[in-house]
Amino acid sequence: MDVSATDRILYENRRERLKALLAAEGLPALLVSYPANRFYLSGFELFDSQCNESVGWLVVTQSGPDALFTDARFTDAALRLWPQEDLCIYGAGRHAALAEFLKGRGVSALGFDPKAVSVYDHEALREHFGLTPAGGLVERLRLVKEPGEIELLRAACGLNHRIMRALPDVLVPGLTEAEAAWQIERLFREAGAESLSFPSIVGVDRNAALPHAIPGDTRISRDCLVLVDAGCRLNGYCSDQTRTFWVGREPSERFRETKRLVIAAQKAALEAIKPGVRMAEAYAAARRVFEDAGVANQFTHSLGHGIGLETHEGPSLSPRAEGEFRPGMVLTVEPGLYDAAWGGVRWEYMVVVTDEGCKAL
Amino acid sequence: MDVSATDRILYENRRERLKALLAAEGLPALLVSYPANRFYLSGFELFDSQCNESVGWLVVTQSGPDALFTDARFTDAALRLWPQEDLCIYGAGRHAALAEFLKGRGVSALGFDPKAVSVYDHEALREHFGLTPAGGLVERLRLVKEPGEIELLRAACGLNHRIMRALPDVLVPGLTEAEAAWQIERLFREAGAESLSFPSIVGVDRNAALPHAIPGDTRISRDCLVLVDAGCRLNGYCSDQTRTFWVGREPSERFRETKRLVIAAQKAALEAIKPGVRMAEAYAAARRVFEDAGVANQFTHSLGHGIGLETHEGPSLSPRAEGEFRPGMVLTVEPGLYDAAWGGVRWEYMVVVTDEGCKAL
Repeated sequence: MDVSATDRILYENRRERLKALLAAEGLPALLVSYPANRFYLSGFELFDSQCNESVGWLVVTQSGPDALFTDARFTDAALRLWPQEDLCIYGAGRHAALAEFLKGRGVSALGFDPKAVSVYDHEALREHFGLTPAGGLVERLRLVKEPGEIELLRAACGLNHRIMRALPDVLVPGLTEAEAAWQIERLFREAGAESLSFPSIVGVDRNAALPHAIPGDTRISRDCLVLVDAGCRLNGYCSDQTRTFWVGREPSERFRETKRLVIAAQKAALEAIKPGVRMAEAYAAARRVFEDAGVANQFTHSLGHGIGLETHEGPSLSPRAEGEFRPGMVLTVEPGLYDAAWGGVRWEYMVVVTDEGCKAL
Repeated sequence: MDVSATDRILYENRRERLKALLAAEGLPALLVSYPANRFYLSGFELFDSQCNESVGWLVVTQSGPDALFTDARFTDAALRLWPQEDLCIYGAGRHAALAEFLKGRGVSALGFDPKAVSVYDHEALREHFGLTPAGGLVERLRLVKEPGEIELLRAACGLNHRIMRALPDVLVPGLTEAEAAWQIERLFREAGAESLSFPSIVGVDRNAALPHAIPGDTRISRDCLVLVDAGCRLNGYCSDQTRTFWVGREPSERFRETKRLVIAAQKAALEAIKPGVRMAEAYAAARRVFEDAGVANQFTHSLGHGIGLETHEGPSLSPRAEGEFRPGMVLTVEPGLYDAAWGGVRWEYMVVVTDEGCKAL
């Protein structure tokens, strides 16, 4: 698969915006070690092979050419994206290779993300470079999505909606949570998703109250609620949706009332989301609905999170969220009410912040 | 799912062995932050939710009780494994929570793994603790598998063999590499695997020469070679197998000859693997077969790697591998020959080192 000229320009434009940030921060260069940031700026490998096995680093300079570092397994993939003269294939001693390659270009000082560089790498790099902590710069760019990214998120979310619409036929009495989770994964994959964006949650009745429910061998019964929190990755971008279904004849009174409250809280949050509004306000708006109904203690998590190349990215819609909404942010809005003795209802949309407010994807 | 008493004792025994290492190193306590190590010692969560989102830390002390730290999402899962009095549920300030909980127990110094602690966490922790680099201690324990782990690896590998045996019927002309990869994943999952242990490689002809081939839209033709490198995770443990198939009537002369050499190299490596033999010897034994045939330049990677809770773990069977084989090590042995203009053949076994030599799983 060759990388199109349009994509190359996209990555170049992102690096240009980063270079402006580097200039503002007075940093001659930035070591990009976090995989999603590396991919965002270069198109090279969205994932490391394991969390402890980096497949490469990117160094973006304030004014010179940028350089990509990887090992021989990825030479081929890197050359599809990157000019050979700016590519360094390292062997065993990656820190020394980095130093040699960059010193040839006059780079002897690097900014780095303290959350994405291990103590080990830091020790090895500081033998060669002046190092300055500079976290969150690429994340600052990723916070506001480009129109093309919003389209990709809309496509991932569209597939998610299709699968959710098919679920009433899938969630039948007798099926276990684990079996349902596998059926959901199959539907996503056979419809073209690269993978799930996170392990699906399928919780029957009381299991729906566990915020981290692993689908198990509890079976869907003739009359029960089933909470499904599932998403996919399509063309690199993530979706994340939760719906709580009723299986059987008439939903119980408690289910209907809980669902009504959760959807009312979600509506209140959506109405609060506007450019210039403090992000903590969205959580507060949802919470007020629950407070008025005397159930706020059952709302046990934050309202949502940014989503894009990763399922969880900035900003966080927690009660302590700082900053304001800005057009182009893409967020999940997912209030829920939980009672360990009964079950839970969560309802989730993905929205993009627009000039006037927000719009569900 | 409740954790059995047997499993609890297993984790406890592993921590006892770690405590002996801590005593030998003069470390009062060790912060265990790497997910597979945390799971190995406690049974708590084999994975973090993202590489940048830890779901918890374990602190093993040399002589006192051990403590588990996580957030509220995992309270339920943690309590199934861990006594409440040794469990700390943190909120936003995890470093301070760790400090407060441990100071109450007289722990003010921690060993840590420099490869598994970020500069950010290190800075925050050293406000509270004396920190000593102490990498690789848990990995040293994981290097030699317990009989129960060998059984689990044998089971994962057994499923892998079953799927490989089914592949001649799956790999039919017209199918793309990506379609074949999805069929393989379905077979694994429907046979009970939790997941793949790594993204499958399916490479047709020249694509088989790419060491990091992403299955694409190249189709299996009427006469071609197909390299499949695929594995699964079953009950937490990983398998990893490579076979290179010929689709069509008669395999080409070159395919047969290349396969013959690769299998001869593998046999030589397997014969070299014995307790007390230097690990670099196994690589050298395989390479000598290729050297004698004048094709050693086509053997472009190391011979194999340890495997267990992770697909890639110690030891590494590279030409520079240090140390000796020990009974209970489980390793992949996977020589290959590659020619970018033609294709490649790789053949892989998983073996356990026994008292006399090694045995394929």
